[in-house]
Amino acid sequence: MKILISQINPIVGDLKYNSELIIKSIDHGEKLGADLVLFPELALTGYPPQDLLWQQEFIQAVEAKLEQIAATVKEMTVVIGFPRACPKSPRKLFNSAAIIEKGKIIGYADKVLLPTYDVFNEQRYFNSGKSSHVWTIKGKKVAILICEDIWQHSYPETFSNYHRDPVLELKTSSPDIVLNLSASPYFSQKPLHRQTVCLKVAKTLNCPVILCNQVGANDSLIFDGNSLYVGPKGLIKCAAAFKEEHLLIDLEKQEANSKKEELAEKELYEALVLGVRDYFLKQGLKTACLGLSGGVDSALVATIASEALGPQNVTALFMPSRFSSFQSARDAKLLAANLKMPFKIIEIEEAFHSFSLFLTSQLDQPLLEVTTENLQARIRALLLMAFSNNSGALLLATGNKSELSMGYATLYGDMCGALGVIGDLTKSQVVAIAKWINRAKEIIPWYTIERPPSAELKENQKDSDVLPDYKLLDAILTFYMEKNCSAQTIANMLGISQVEVEQIILRIHQTEYKRRQAPPALKVSAKAFTIGRHFPIVQRWSY
Amino acid sequence: MKILISQINPIVGDLKYNSELIIKSIDHGEKLGADLVLFPELALTGYPPQDLLWQQEFIQAVEAKLEQIAATVKEMTVVIGFPRACPKSPRKLFNSAAIIEKGKIIGYADKVLLPTYDVFNEQRYFNSGKSSHVWTIKGKKVAILICEDIWQHSYPETFSNYHRDPVLELKTSSPDIVLNLSASPYFSQKPLHRQTVCLKVAKTLNCPVILCNQVGANDSLIFDGNSLYVGPKGLIKCAAAFKEEHLLIDLEKQEANSKKEELAEKELYEALVLGVRDYFLKQGLKTACLGLSGGVDSALVATIASEALGPQNVTALFMPSRFSSFQSARDAKLLAANLKMPFKIIEIEEAFHSFSLFLTSQLDQPLLEVTTENLQARIRALLLMAFSNNSGALLLATGNKSELSMGYATLYGDMCGALGVIGDLTKSQVVAIAKWINRAKEIIPWYTIERPPSAELKENQKDSDVLPDYKLLDAILTFYMEKNCSAQTIANMLGISQVEVEQIILRIHQTEYKRRQAPPALKVSAKAFTIGRHFPIVQRWSY
Repeated sequence: MKILISQINPIVGDLKYNSELIIKSIDHGEKLGADLVLFPELALTGYPPQDLLWQQEFIQAVEAKLEQIAATVKEMTVVIGFPRACPKSPRKLFNSAAIIEKGKIIGYADKVLLPTYDVFNEQRYFNSGKSSHVWTIKGKKVAILICEDIWQHSYPETFSNYHRDPVLELKTSSPDIVLNLSASPYFSQKPLHRQTVCLKVAKTLNCPVILCNQVGANDSLIFDGNSLYVGPKGLIKCAAAFKEEHLLIDLEKQEANSKKEELAEKELYEALVLGVRDYFLKQGLKTACLGLSGGVDSALVATIASEALGPQNVTALFMPSRFSSFQSARDAKLLAANLKMPFKIIEIEEAFHSFSLFLTSQLDQPLLEVTTENLQARIRALLLMAFSNNSGALLLATGNKSELSMGYATLYGDMCGALGVIGDLTKSQVVAIAKWINRAKEIIPWYTIERPPSAELKENQKDSDVLPDYKLLDAILTFYMEKNCSAQTIANMLGISQVEVEQIILRIHQTEYKRRQAPPALKVSAKAFTIGRHFPIVQRWSY
Repeated sequence: MKILISQINPIVGDLKYNSELIIKSIDHGEKLGADLVLFPELALTGYPPQDLLWQQEFIQAVEAKLEQIAATVKEMTVVIGFPRACPKSPRKLFNSAAIIEKGKIIGYADKVLLPTYDVFNEQRYFNSGKSSHVWTIKGKKVAILICEDIWQHSYPETFSNYHRDPVLELKTSSPDIVLNLSASPYFSQKPLHRQTVCLKVAKTLNCPVILCNQVGANDSLIFDGNSLYVGPKGLIKCAAAFKEEHLLIDLEKQEANSKKEELAEKELYEALVLGVRDYFLKQGLKTACLGLSGGVDSALVATIASEALGPQNVTALFMPSRFSSFQSARDAKLLAANLKMPFKIIEIEEAFHSFSLFLTSQLDQPLLEVTTENLQARIRALLLMAFSNNSGALLLATGNKSELSMGYATLYGDMCGALGVIGDLTKSQVVAIAKWINRAKEIIPWYTIERPPSAELKENQKDSDVLPDYKLLDAILTFYMEKNCSAQTIANMLGISQVEVEQIILRIHQTEYKRRQAPPALKVSAKAFTIGRHFPIVQRWSY
């Protein structure tokens, strides 16, 4: 039996584009002599369609498109993810897979476990499927499960409102193979994790698992592809990361086990490049702009954006004030030259000076330090947005997760931008990726990477004046956000005082209001700000 | 039997404050000779606690507080909403009511139906309760249900993933009374609606229903109170709207049916006043500022904020440019005088002029109209934020839902602010409420209300130059957002072409990116932007 994994990059809501992509894949499968073509979860709508699922015309259009696709299927079996309305009660939806043979839909496999945590919201839209089916296809017993249905088997205790394990339920049917349709969003090291999950299923059911994952980015979510063919003894094949691929699996062919493990920095970099590229491409946009400060954050964003959109399509604006160091000027210019991106210098000193005077006279009082610091960031934002309005280039935000966690950023200033490219990278990760980018030659000036971080909004300012050491902050942030650890646990693990941890967590809570207006960040960690975290602004829980 | 409805205003996460509030109510109940004191849903944590529920120390602290409260209960029965962890598996939470007698928790009633639509996300956190209990209290059969559990009885078809009706399940037990703990957020006309829902339950079970609703605002959600005592023949008593109240119900006393219906404008106004007041109060903040334009939107926000915080605590900045009319100047000043609020005029003409020249020279090209329009809005934002930074006054955003739906607003310009006070009011509602405010005497200058709306960002500009007629837009918006109608249905209902409706819906979709960075709006409609609507930015579904 030959199975074609069709790892496609659909666009949310673009049923025409997605169905053309699907039909082309089916044709391709036919030419390759595949017996079955497997698509990702909700491939027809793209994942996640969110509240589009509540529009009845959308669901009707999906049904019509699926019929059109089915009509093109000849001798093979095709398995496609789509949202299925219950014929008797059209508001009742299932996250389903259509099984298509000879021009007809012969059945459906509905997702049983509906993730409703972190970025997932499936119980908002879907009903739970009744049972895990096994289908006889070309004489083989084929089990079809959707994404989450196989994860619970590895984490039976994590999600307390799952009361079933669809993998175990299949045990008595002894399937010959398990197919899994996935839209499993990326975060750091998740691809490896996904292999482990598949391996456990393959071992339990003693049969191979073929997982087809969506690839491509939709808003904040990046899907890494990395579709899998895993046997009870380990990984056999893995599709490409971060790009479309058609991977043909021949179940009869004996193949050795293989390995696929990626360097964390490379994986994150490629994820973010795809995230930026798809954000622009899928909106029909080409050009971006950003403020280059001479610091490592904007340097990394410039590098990612240049790779994603082509350096000629990304304009860097360096906007020095009296507090900008000559090294910043030198490095910003050097980076732009290294990347071959358009570079403009706009001095803000005069605007800053005259605005400060104007404000002092209008407000009838001296300006506080916070006011003048923010003023500089906001004048820069005003210039960047004017450039954006005048040129059509979309502004990219350059703040990192560590800064954002502390609210160390100016709302309507450096927080401006359509997309928070590195809003889910800690400062430590930013530095690590910048170093990785320089692995063969200097692209980001080494001084930029190694200098003590500074916002350069006042004389001799350093981030460390008001922020905890980044290594410490990032460790706390990761334990608190991703592992949901208590202050006490974190303090014990890091060997610091509980009070210190509590103060940092309190500051994370108190700056929630800023992040609520931050641009959507590309999610690359297990727990990001701006998506998948629902935290009240006004609340008084503290340690 | 005497039941005290304790309609309190808890603060999310403030277990100390909330438990003091609860203990005071219990004391009060004792003094009044109540047999039972009833609190709202999740009264101990405040609703909605969101991801605080995932912090184990939080849940442990809730349990400890509940024990402390229980210890204060003497001869009465007390029913309090709180998140209950399953003793055997602490990650497993229930949205529960503790039933307390003689210093001990004697049992729990867990919520059965967990709303997961619009602003509700309860399946993210909670497990569903097993059955609807009936408790014997002072010889009466008392059924205890939580919020949503009674709503399904009126709308059996709406939410397809509810497979039970807890009200019907109670029928065989013939309760003497139904108690309902609610945190039922306000939207326009919902209080009346809630009465109808209770009435249906009272009729089905042929017994009175007592509903205790939370009051107060938490972020975007406003809870109106309006707790109810409803018999099979109709409303008997209703607690105050938009403020705390203790209402003693004597079940033995024969009481006539009463009526409570509020004027839509008054209800909305009071809701928004509470929304602003609690946003500030619960953060320990006192002062606000806003830009006054001479238009009706900012005039309404100024009026609401003055009522909420005291006029002396709200500073209005009027910031005219060359395009501001003399009527705008006159009306802004008049309004501030009527409200007795501090008023400042800051001319932006010079800053606008010099920034325009600066930008033209720096960008090496003439500025587009969109650039200069946005520039004015952003200079104003820069001034307002400088005022805010220097004074500590929180900036209020003044955009309405109609503008926001069309993206007719400047990101990082007039969209700035901590709270979108009228971000969920259509322009038609803004005008209606402004007129209602003037019912006895002119507070908002009549010319402000009656003039053709204009952003005054260029010569003789009118909103109608680029926007549909507001009456039409607002009608479409309401049908599309709140009723989820198709373009075809809307076109038929309004007697206009389907293409016209489709273009407006397309524009709503295309401007999603702006609203993603809008401040949280106070929700007063059945479907708001910025909360309860999950819509992709990058998507290509269109009609």
